[in-house]
Amino acid sequence: MTTEFQTEMNSFAEKCFEEIREMSHDTLGVSRQGYSELETKVIDYFINIGKELDLEIKTDKAGNVWMTLPGKDRTLPAIVSGSHADSVPQGGNYDGLAGVVAAITVARWMKLQEIQPQRDYTVLIMRMEESSWFGKCYVGSLGMTGQLTDKDLALKHRSTGKTLSETIRSCGFNPDELTTGKPVVDLSKIAGFIELHIEQGPTLDSDETIRTGIVTGIRGNLRHKNIRCIGQTAHSGAVDKQFRHDALLAFAELAHRMDCLWDEELQAGKDLVFTIGVVHTSASSAIAVVPGEVTFCVDMRSLHQETLEHFHGLLLQEAERIAQERGVKFEFDGLISSKPLAIHEKLSEHLYQSAQTAGVPARRLPSGAGHDTCVFGNLGVPAAMIFVANQNGSHNPYEEMKISDFMQGTAVLLEAIKNYPEKAIQ
Amino acid sequence: MTTEFQTEMNSFAEKCFEEIREMSHDTLGVSRQGYSELETKVIDYFINIGKELDLEIKTDKAGNVWMTLPGKDRTLPAIVSGSHADSVPQGGNYDGLAGVVAAITVARWMKLQEIQPQRDYTVLIMRMEESSWFGKCYVGSLGMTGQLTDKDLALKHRSTGKTLSETIRSCGFNPDELTTGKPVVDLSKIAGFIELHIEQGPTLDSDETIRTGIVTGIRGNLRHKNIRCIGQTAHSGAVDKQFRHDALLAFAELAHRMDCLWDEELQAGKDLVFTIGVVHTSASSAIAVVPGEVTFCVDMRSLHQETLEHFHGLLLQEAERIAQERGVKFEFDGLISSKPLAIHEKLSEHLYQSAQTAGVPARRLPSGAGHDTCVFGNLGVPAAMIFVANQNGSHNPYEEMKISDFMQGTAVLLEAIKNYPEKAIQ
Repeated sequence: MTTEFQTEMNSFAEKCFEEIREMSHDTLGVSRQGYSELETKVIDYFINIGKELDLEIKTDKAGNVWMTLPGKDRTLPAIVSGSHADSVPQGGNYDGLAGVVAAITVARWMKLQEIQPQRDYTVLIMRMEESSWFGKCYVGSLGMTGQLTDKDLALKHRSTGKTLSETIRSCGFNPDELTTGKPVVDLSKIAGFIELHIEQGPTLDSDETIRTGIVTGIRGNLRHKNIRCIGQTAHSGAVDKQFRHDALLAFAELAHRMDCLWDEELQAGKDLVFTIGVVHTSASSAIAVVPGEVTFCVDMRSLHQETLEHFHGLLLQEAERIAQERGVKFEFDGLISSKPLAIHEKLSEHLYQSAQTAGVPARRLPSGAGHDTCVFGNLGVPAAMIFVANQNGSHNPYEEMKISDFMQGTAVLLEAIKNYPEKAIQ
Repeated sequence: MTTEFQTEMNSFAEKCFEEIREMSHDTLGVSRQGYSELETKVIDYFINIGKELDLEIKTDKAGNVWMTLPGKDRTLPAIVSGSHADSVPQGGNYDGLAGVVAAITVARWMKLQEIQPQRDYTVLIMRMEESSWFGKCYVGSLGMTGQLTDKDLALKHRSTGKTLSETIRSCGFNPDELTTGKPVVDLSKIAGFIELHIEQGPTLDSDETIRTGIVTGIRGNLRHKNIRCIGQTAHSGAVDKQFRHDALLAFAELAHRMDCLWDEELQAGKDLVFTIGVVHTSASSAIAVVPGEVTFCVDMRSLHQETLEHFHGLLLQEAERIAQERGVKFEFDGLISSKPLAIHEKLSEHLYQSAQTAGVPARRLPSGAGHDTCVFGNLGVPAAMIFVANQNGSHNPYEEMKISDFMQGTAVLLEAIKNYPEKAIQ
């Protein structure tokens, strides 16, 4: 990474971030709803930059914008990089936007340096990735690949009640063309997709030297939204321990036991996170009553489906043991599942090698959250991700990315595009 | 216990229970609010029986009714037995009422058998013991001993909003006479108070042979209404275990640890019950967010103040350890405390001996809940209790007492009254 690149690109990227923050600031943080006038305005901001750079600009039927720097051999499938323009309500400025700015920074640098890549390099700016407003994630990329459903289109905005269908239509696109099961773009013309994104956890930020991550995979999850532990209410003073069927202490044993088993999985080198996000006793619970019912949810995530299934098995097994021992019952609702995405190994390795070449310290790490990258990966497009260190998590107004960290990640992306091999990575 | 006594008294007691249930049945169970027309009607029912039995009947300024079978030596302080006439809303028919019916059954038997006790024997029917309607317990007995406060009198009915003061006044009594700190009855004329009550736990009912209990003490309690465990919210997928400060798993460890320490206390022969009646994550908790806050309450009860203080010390100590280890914080609200009541040992022993004499299998056991007995005991009146086996707990419409169990307890009471020693038990 040259000092020249840093200085020039730093100010360009900072200007993009600041001008877009200015457009989209809310009482707290920024709010850029997908398929809104504001999202269109942000996309237009990038289209103007694309025009200045003389990129070839196309908008697909889902409203995503493709801006291409032509390669030497225009018959080859393009290498594509980008992310989403929207944000959660009162969120941070960098989730999504960092990947768009990185991709266009790379295009700009190549243009200014008159570097013509072997194949087309395309900056992709996607619409609505966040699920906060309508409850559905990846709407822009799913729409582009024809994977939205009528049920999705009928979803209502959490405050206005306007449907997703009406919302897409109000931006000038026909939602009915996005539910056919067939992509509205030609995926065979994409050699690979690389998304730069802020890390949504603290791993990279907790390391002073290695601030760039090469994503090894995207965690899948197994979830129960509503597990009930049913015991028996009793007088908290008059009923001795041997007569109790305390739903709360049964729950506590299960939660603590799973916490200990989680440690064992980690010690065995497994990738796993385990969360009980919500718990509550019933509405009639009271200080002087032994709880007869506790409701909670469970979210397990891992890069490996077998780890998920194994840990879920342990959960059921421990619940059964505790139920037997304590005379309580655990009622599990249906299992919700999302499979892990195996990041394209060779493309990921290319990113890691590009970091070495660019002199950027990098580490391999998993992504706990899902990204548009999943949509490409699941359709067989080679897809990989670069993570950039970030403070205070994401999806909140306190999200904070250092521009120096951003530039390191962007240098890796530049290197990966510049040196993308003549024969496509497959 | 003679068969004759059983047969005759059985039908008398059953008639009382059924006729009063008839007066007070609700859509579910019975509802006899304290200081209501219905409570007065129930008390009048007993006054009529007292009149038939030619007992001396007095109503004190708090509305409690005293019906005396004169003893041989009328200068001696009386032995008193009774309980409360009210119930919780949609409660059972026996909590309180059993003690009144037992006391009057004993008076009736002595009268019919022409047994004149050495000293006066008084049946005491008390008003409003339950706290469900106004949030204050022991109102009848506290009023009689001048221990109500202006704050108590200003308490409002949970549904009508009528004050306790207005409610007492509507029964024809002057509440302002009950807040003077001085009893409205002469406590020095009471040699002892014995209350028969259904057990509110399952101990007696779980034993086929021993269905009668002699209460050893009334558990005191230490409570925190609102303890907060504060950690840090985080993305449930993107944040690895070593970076988490999960308030829920910290709570679960504390709850489970206290459960294990409770077992240790019981194994060491300590009297203790421990309850976390309510727990909930914050309103913004969600399946995909590591919980940053958990709120819960704690209720610890024991016959021994030192056991309570020791266990409370363990709670604070474990919370501190877990807070250190997990990087969370436990915030405890003020401690609410109610001291254990030591039942009058000699009077309790007299009850135990009376059970032996009457041929009633009995066991000593603690009372987890409080009773009017506490008001007498705390003012230095020798006070003791007899428990009767009961199914399905109390304070609910499914409360169920077998008449045969009731008659065994009543036989113990009869024996204790008949053979109360010439020199008062002190």
